[in-house]
Amino acid sequence: MIETSNTEIQLTNRPVGMPTMENFEFVETAIPSPKENELLVRTLYLSVDPYMRGRMNDAKSYIPPFELNEAMSGGIVAEVVESKVEGFEQGDIVTGNLKWSKYSLVNEKEIRKIDPAVAPISSHLGVLGMPGLTAYFGLLDIGKPKENETVVVSGASGAVGSLVGQIAKLKGAKVVGIAGTAEKVNYLLDELRFDAAVNYKDSDFKTKLKNALSEGVDVYYDNVGGEISDEVMTYMNRNSRIPVCGAISAYNLTRPDIGPRVQGLLIKNSVLMQGFTVGNYSDGFQIAAADLGKWLKEGKLKYEETIVEGFDQTINAFLGLFKGTNLGKQIVKVAEPKYSKK
Amino acid sequence: MIETSNTEIQLTNRPVGMPTMENFEFVETAIPSPKENELLVRTLYLSVDPYMRGRMNDAKSYIPPFELNEAMSGGIVAEVVESKVEGFEQGDIVTGNLKWSKYSLVNEKEIRKIDPAVAPISSHLGVLGMPGLTAYFGLLDIGKPKENETVVVSGASGAVGSLVGQIAKLKGAKVVGIAGTAEKVNYLLDELRFDAAVNYKDSDFKTKLKNALSEGVDVYYDNVGGEISDEVMTYMNRNSRIPVCGAISAYNLTRPDIGPRVQGLLIKNSVLMQGFTVGNYSDGFQIAAADLGKWLKEGKLKYEETIVEGFDQTINAFLGLFKGTNLGKQIVKVAEPKYSKK
Repeated sequence: MIETSNTEIQLTNRPVGMPTMENFEFVETAIPSPKENELLVRTLYLSVDPYMRGRMNDAKSYIPPFELNEAMSGGIVAEVVESKVEGFEQGDIVTGNLKWSKYSLVNEKEIRKIDPAVAPISSHLGVLGMPGLTAYFGLLDIGKPKENETVVVSGASGAVGSLVGQIAKLKGAKVVGIAGTAEKVNYLLDELRFDAAVNYKDSDFKTKLKNALSEGVDVYYDNVGGEISDEVMTYMNRNSRIPVCGAISAYNLTRPDIGPRVQGLLIKNSVLMQGFTVGNYSDGFQIAAADLGKWLKEGKLKYEETIVEGFDQTINAFLGLFKGTNLGKQIVKVAEPKYSKK
Repeated sequence: MIETSNTEIQLTNRPVGMPTMENFEFVETAIPSPKENELLVRTLYLSVDPYMRGRMNDAKSYIPPFELNEAMSGGIVAEVVESKVEGFEQGDIVTGNLKWSKYSLVNEKEIRKIDPAVAPISSHLGVLGMPGLTAYFGLLDIGKPKENETVVVSGASGAVGSLVGQIAKLKGAKVVGIAGTAEKVNYLLDELRFDAAVNYKDSDFKTKLKNALSEGVDVYYDNVGGEISDEVMTYMNRNSRIPVCGAISAYNLTRPDIGPRVQGLLIKNSVLMQGFTVGNYSDGFQIAAADLGKWLKEGKLKYEETIVEGFDQTINAFLGLFKGTNLGKQIVKVAEPKYSKK
């Protein structure tokens, strides 16, 4: 089947609270033709990530908001259909931050060629992509785990959290994961070999957490904020560190996000909290990617992908992030490669 | 008048909420005699500080709680009455963390000799003592203000805050102070030459703060926590820093200290919050004290002291800290020197 038209997903109105289908529209357009120094690429895999929720609001942040009546965008793995850029040819696999669109016109600066021989190409949206780098820098640059320290990670079975815990284990730390289903807890214990894992939806969550944290917390890698973080933060050790990566519990709140103020506990134990985004570390991407690739090749990092099939499933996949339906990286498989050599 | 008996102030029961006179007892004892390697010292000036409130609770913290039915303790400037330690003689002025007592037996390790020729001896409880070091390290090691950045300090007219603002000015920053009376605001503007100062008790505090923070906040030196900090933190710039030094607004709360959770804003602007106590920096005390002494001598640092007279006024002076009755360092003058050479 040869596609004759293109489709993109536009943001048509801004959500209040949890996004719904009604915030988006699938818009048919023509498949464009590349001009000089342009490439036409075809989306194979598309990444949905919690941070995108923030960009749906009309508010100043570390990246500008998505524009209304324009395509959403994010991490994409695509194949080159037609190249008018030297060094790229039909069938090359590329990745970049591109539109939620079946086809896109891009220039050389927007994409990076990837080698399908190294790892499955979808891994460039996870362990070898933005989530991998986010785990790497937040943990190693801010968290700085030392041997035998206790590292706690929330959102532990997600794309970032699952890597945080494994990298912490590589550094000799004791790792405690927090996740939201028994299946995820088992995955953390059995597959990723975390030292402990706790389901925050269990009625005795607080007791189980306390038991897992008998030595306190030296690093709390926070992906979720909210009540889970309130609870973990009561266990911080002296000179402990909190890389603040995400606050998914708050992204869809329509009331203020209220909880215990943290100043007292930060003073009491000289605790550091550092908010960050992976963009802060662009100078170090190459080294980090090399480390992640090496660990992956050596079998020291495992990863899961939850893949839904079909571009029309993109919104469902995105909304699922807030219900915790994903294990590991949530990805949308948009198409099979057609032009690539393998 | 030759004193024939000693008095110390003991903590006799732990406060719930704001302390009262009933939590303390003035206990008469005998003036002790020094044995070999001991000194008898006579308290001249005594420091009351907000952090002491934390030690009145029976809770694990960075320093152990005060014991019930034992003397309170804190920064003291005293004169040597009788010395059985080589290198110390009657009339020497010393400082240390000693009992709230008119006379104390101490050993060499508990005290440090000070030179009355350098600065008024009471300044060793303020600018040249723990508050000076606290301002210095929190601001310079955590806050790291750069030229033309905006530094906000709460509790700005207090012992620590007034030094924070002045050191920030020395580093070329624009300084905004927050205090609780018109008199304090005028002091910050007229005497300390802050660039702006705002009274948090004014009905239009939020508007005035907004006007003062048109360029956002690069460093927020937090002495108070609570609603003031909630408000300041909405103005944090990208890569800004929050040295968390004190949370006086919360020290006497009998309900949980609840407010907006901070994770979202820390992530949005990659903000750092670092709790600390001056004890973390003991390796650097000598260098810091030299810097502070030099700035003081050069007239680059001003300081105020609110001095109440009489050991029997100690509790009143301590309780006044929580009502903001002090400008600059709150000190109790216990006695005139009797044995010292000048």
